[in-house]
Amino acid sequence: MAIHLGANQYGKAESRVVRIYRDTPRHQIRDLNVSSALRGRFEDAHTTGNQGEVLPTDTQKNTAFAFAKEKGVGAIEDFALTLGGHFLDAAAAADGARIEVEEYPWERITVDGADHDHSFVRAGSGIRTTVVNVEGRGSERKAYVVSGIRDLTVLKSTGSEFHGFLKDRYTTLPETDDRILATSLVARWRYDHTEVDWDKSYEQIKGLLLEQFARIHSLALQQTLYGMGEAVLEQHPEVAEIKFSAPNKHHFLVDLSPFGVENPGEVFIAADRPYGLIEATVVRDDASDPGSAWHAVPGFC
Amino acid sequence: MAIHLGANQYGKAESRVVRIYRDTPRHQIRDLNVSSALRGRFEDAHTTGNQGEVLPTDTQKNTAFAFAKEKGVGAIEDFALTLGGHFLDAAAAADGARIEVEEYPWERITVDGADHDHSFVRAGSGIRTTVVNVEGRGSERKAYVVSGIRDLTVLKSTGSEFHGFLKDRYTTLPETDDRILATSLVARWRYDHTEVDWDKSYEQIKGLLLEQFARIHSLALQQTLYGMGEAVLEQHPEVAEIKFSAPNKHHFLVDLSPFGVENPGEVFIAADRPYGLIEATVVRDDASDPGSAWHAVPGFC
Amino acid sequence: MAIHLGANQYGKAESRVVRIYRDTPRHQIRDLNVSSALRGRFEDAHTTGNQGEVLPTDTQKNTAFAFAKEKGVGAIEDFALTLGGHFLDAAAAADGARIEVEEYPWERITVDGADHDHSFVRAGSGIRTTVVNVEGRGSERKAYVVSGIRDLTVLKSTGSEFHGFLKDRYTTLPETDDRILATSLVARWRYDHTEVDWDKSYEQIKGLLLEQFARIHSLALQQTLYGMGEAVLEQHPEVAEIKFSAPNKHHFLVDLSPFGVENPGEVFIAADRPYGLIEATVVRDDASDPGSAWHAVPGFC
Amino acid sequence: MAIHLGANQYGKAESRVVRIYRDTPRHQIRDLNVSSALRGRFEDAHTTGNQGEVLPTDTQKNTAFAFAKEKGVGAIEDFALTLGGHFLDAAAAADGARIEVEEYPWERITVDGADHDHSFVRAGSGIRTTVVNVEGRGSERKAYVVSGIRDLTVLKSTGSEFHGFLKDRYTTLPETDDRILATSLVARWRYDHTEVDWDKSYEQIKGLLLEQFARIHSLALQQTLYGMGEAVLEQHPEVAEIKFSAPNKHHFLVDLSPFGVENPGEVFIAADRPYGLIEATVVRDDASDPGSAWHAVPGFC
Repeated sequence: MAIHLGANQYGKAESRVVRIYRDTPRHQIRDLNVSSALRGRFEDAHTTGNQGEVLPTDTQKNTAFAFAKEKGVGAIEDFALTLGGHFLDAAAAADGARIEVEEYPWERITVDGADHDHSFVRAGSGIRTTVVNVEGRGSERKAYVVSGIRDLTVLKSTGSEFHGFLKDRYTTLPETDDRILATSLVARWRYDHTEVDWDKSYEQIKGLLLEQFARIHSLALQQTLYGMGEAVLEQHPEVAEIKFSAPNKHHFLVDLSPFGVENPGEVFIAADRPYGLIEATVVRDDASDPGSAWHAVPGFC
Repeated sequence: MAIHLGANQYGKAESRVVRIYRDTPRHQIRDLNVSSALRGRFEDAHTTGNQGEVLPTDTQKNTAFAFAKEKGVGAIEDFALTLGGHFLDAAAAADGARIEVEEYPWERITVDGADHDHSFVRAGSGIRTTVVNVEGRGSERKAYVVSGIRDLTVLKSTGSEFHGFLKDRYTTLPETDDRILATSLVARWRYDHTEVDWDKSYEQIKGLLLEQFARIHSLALQQTLYGMGEAVLEQHPEVAEIKFSAPNKHHFLVDLSPFGVENPGEVFIAADRPYGLIEATVVRDDASDPGSAWHAVPGFC
Repeated sequence: MAIHLGANQYGKAESRVVRIYRDTPRHQIRDLNVSSALRGRFEDAHTTGNQGEVLPTDTQKNTAFAFAKEKGVGAIEDFALTLGGHFLDAAAAADGARIEVEEYPWERITVDGADHDHSFVRAGSGIRTTVVNVEGRGSERKAYVVSGIRDLTVLKSTGSEFHGFLKDRYTTLPETDDRILATSLVARWRYDHTEVDWDKSYEQIKGLLLEQFARIHSLALQQTLYGMGEAVLEQHPEVAEIKFSAPNKHHFLVDLSPFGVENPGEVFIAADRPYGLIEATVVRDDASDPGSAWHAVPGFC
Repeated sequence: MAIHLGANQYGKAESRVVRIYRDTPRHQIRDLNVSSALRGRFEDAHTTGNQGEVLPTDTQKNTAFAFAKEKGVGAIEDFALTLGGHFLDAAAAADGARIEVEEYPWERITVDGADHDHSFVRAGSGIRTTVVNVEGRGSERKAYVVSGIRDLTVLKSTGSEFHGFLKDRYTTLPETDDRILATSLVARWRYDHTEVDWDKSYEQIKGLLLEQFARIHSLALQQTLYGMGEAVLEQHPEVAEIKFSAPNKHHFLVDLSPFGVENPGEVFIAADRPYGLIEATVVRDDASDPGSAWHAVPGFC
């Protein structure tokens, strides 16, 4: 019986890179969580322990910090593309590099009605993400960008129904034409190419997702997600497909009748577990080949 | 050798009460985490197992949900005061009731430039808290209110020094006149009485804390906290004292010199552990007696 | 431009099913976290909101609890296979069902030197997992089983080297022939078929992983993982391949020289972030087709 | 109106000190989480920013690591006492020092039936804790030790009743003479003095807590906790009092009757929130004065 090394990947995860721009008194901050990983022909490292082809994870971390100064931190997609390309050049045995970056949002603190120059407060709704995969060498090099948002927690207090579903002997759920719909959204969209104004695209897509969540009269979380994705694809030709992973955060109407109290959709208990989990992809028919774009992206079918 | 029951307390923790006001098409949401506990003469429950004096924690939970409809949910301080008084009346053996409420902030989603009627997104900066202790019966009844905010994460990219400190043989920290100052603030303030416009007081104190954090040129986190507390006491006569618990979230300047790169305060690594932890109280000289106001409030000296 | 629904999946996540066997005074406990998801031809649910083909996530939850009594809970793999097959039968539009189960280990409490009949304490080293995918109907039905363990935290205080690695201008890591090696292991192995004594296989593989971690003189975490996987494949013909995801939990030697104190490998600081992250697959050459076995398994390349 | 500094405390929290003893091939590991804090006359640091009396939190961290080598790490209580005394000597303005230490348990990995010399696996049931407060100078010095255990998760599948409780109009809980009782125990006991064999005392008390949990037929979690505490005080004269904080982790019997299935105490759903929370103190009548022993110990009434 013969045994061999299969898919593999190694890198440094969760370097917390904070970049301050202080060229003028009005500072800017970009607050990142950077993970990098290389994959490829690393058989020796695994089978004999020879590390001659292995660029240490410590070096990957050093590079992320050094590049934050040398190359600067603009859009996280650009930062990830630069890092990924560099690592492929630096490690000859690597066939692919995967760079994941999260960015935490900060707002300026208001003092006397004006935004402060160098004092910030963490803002709340959603963390920006990107996963970049770079593969190949020279003219064969390809880069894939999947950007997204996570922890975007939204709720509708009405405008959500759920009925007409399949029933079997284990079905007890009552049908309803008015319930709370709430989720902590994770969305990731694959860009068709890399000629994108990343910051602008992100802000617009985030705004559109929120707007569509509000606008759509929901017959099921599936239908809401599809509508959100459809709008993104219609208005953003730079997006090839979009995937959602959305826990249905149940809010159960509390039965107050034992206390002689009516509860017409006013008092709910927010439950932790179990929760529904809805995953869906919306894709344009003529989308480009995804290649390795979704390589090791967790939490999606 | 004789043994006896000492301090004790029991209750239901973390009921997630969500109250929707839907009297008009423009819904309102109050999203709470409610914990209640009773303390007093519960020896029998502990020593013989006789539960005749014990109002079950399940009943406490039921009451929180029923009151969300029967009494309504306005300011969390009022909700807690009502619950606490009720439980003391309901359980004759209880000498004190402690009600803790957290409120999660939501903002309306913007659609076509207008706030949506019934669609919300979780907002980010800080979770509102209150701890209410009620004691005594009839004309002896006293109520103590400690309100606050947690998870208020703030950062200054300059305007923070740290030097002139005590040194011993284990001191290696270099002195600095320019560093990042960052913390995830927990603040709790004790009200002098209960005749307060709770919502207004909370919003103003939150704003003042942020403004003072920005405004104060920091010589140490201690001095920043003291200045923040002093401002609250000066501008809010309804506040008797304020306590802070503030992790000093270290941002270390990264040494890029091995790569021939200068780093004049631009690239930092945000560290997780260890962290500094600064706790301080600022109190007015003529503050009222705290009584049991700080009963079982964690995370403060 | 046309848009369509791509990959999708929906279900109920994290039902905490606890099954007590009490047929004799000596109780047994199986403590599970069960998630189920269906995938397939659910276009209508997404595009028109018609839920006629959708077996509600609530029904999936009910079924998990009912089956805990009706079918019993033996090995989690059997429980998952039964649930998965049932859901495919119950939902005609489903092409595949994915069942994930975690089991939390309990040990009996010792009283007077004997194991107690009905009192348990949570044990610590590792949580057992399985992911089962069932596809097809009638004679076409196929089932894939990937079992594993997570949170198996191990440490070697010596017997670990790391040197001879690739260096570039960002490399500062010193080479070492003696360091601490620590990880919180996630391992998942794919079974070649379903004719397996699941409980026995799990216990043996867990033991073997621990033993090999101890036994292997490590030249890198990659080499340790490969050796662990190789041993599993050699001794367990029922296993087709095994995947690891292993954070390299860095323990840095503390520089005590400023205090005139030597530190020959005795005092370390355990760091949180960043951490190395090593992922590797070890597979036998004649492994069966994985099919959908790894469908939506997070955290692996 | 005058304002002044009230209670205050500052220090370094959560230094992850790992100490390896490698004097022989059979290594030993002590894996600690160390937090220190000083309190006292630190007005200047807060009001003027003058740090002349402030021993930096960074120095406190350095000292913890240096002492791990210089003084060694035996029982965590001894390590904390040594650190606390040192800090009081080092910082003249400090009136008290508080040292908190947690220790994570490791077991040796078994290889060929024998314990391995330098390979370990994290063990599971309970994390050992201590909080030491040292106050005063010279002959006035006093030290207080509160040790404990947390995350000791235990469950009884029978032998637990709950009935005869107080009822009001919000009571719906049915009485029961057979339920699951489960908790994740936090216990902290105050030692009467410091002439204690700490390791032996800890192991015996941990064992006794488990044994009593199993042995006691429970009429309520309060009664179980009291019995556990009573046994500790009876058998451990070195313990003055013991406090418990115990979430009642509800396991609700699932109603399977809609499916025509009986459920005689066999299938439960483990709930997350809300949970009961029971806190109780058991104290001997002639206990020594607690002094500052419980200073800033969270989670206890």
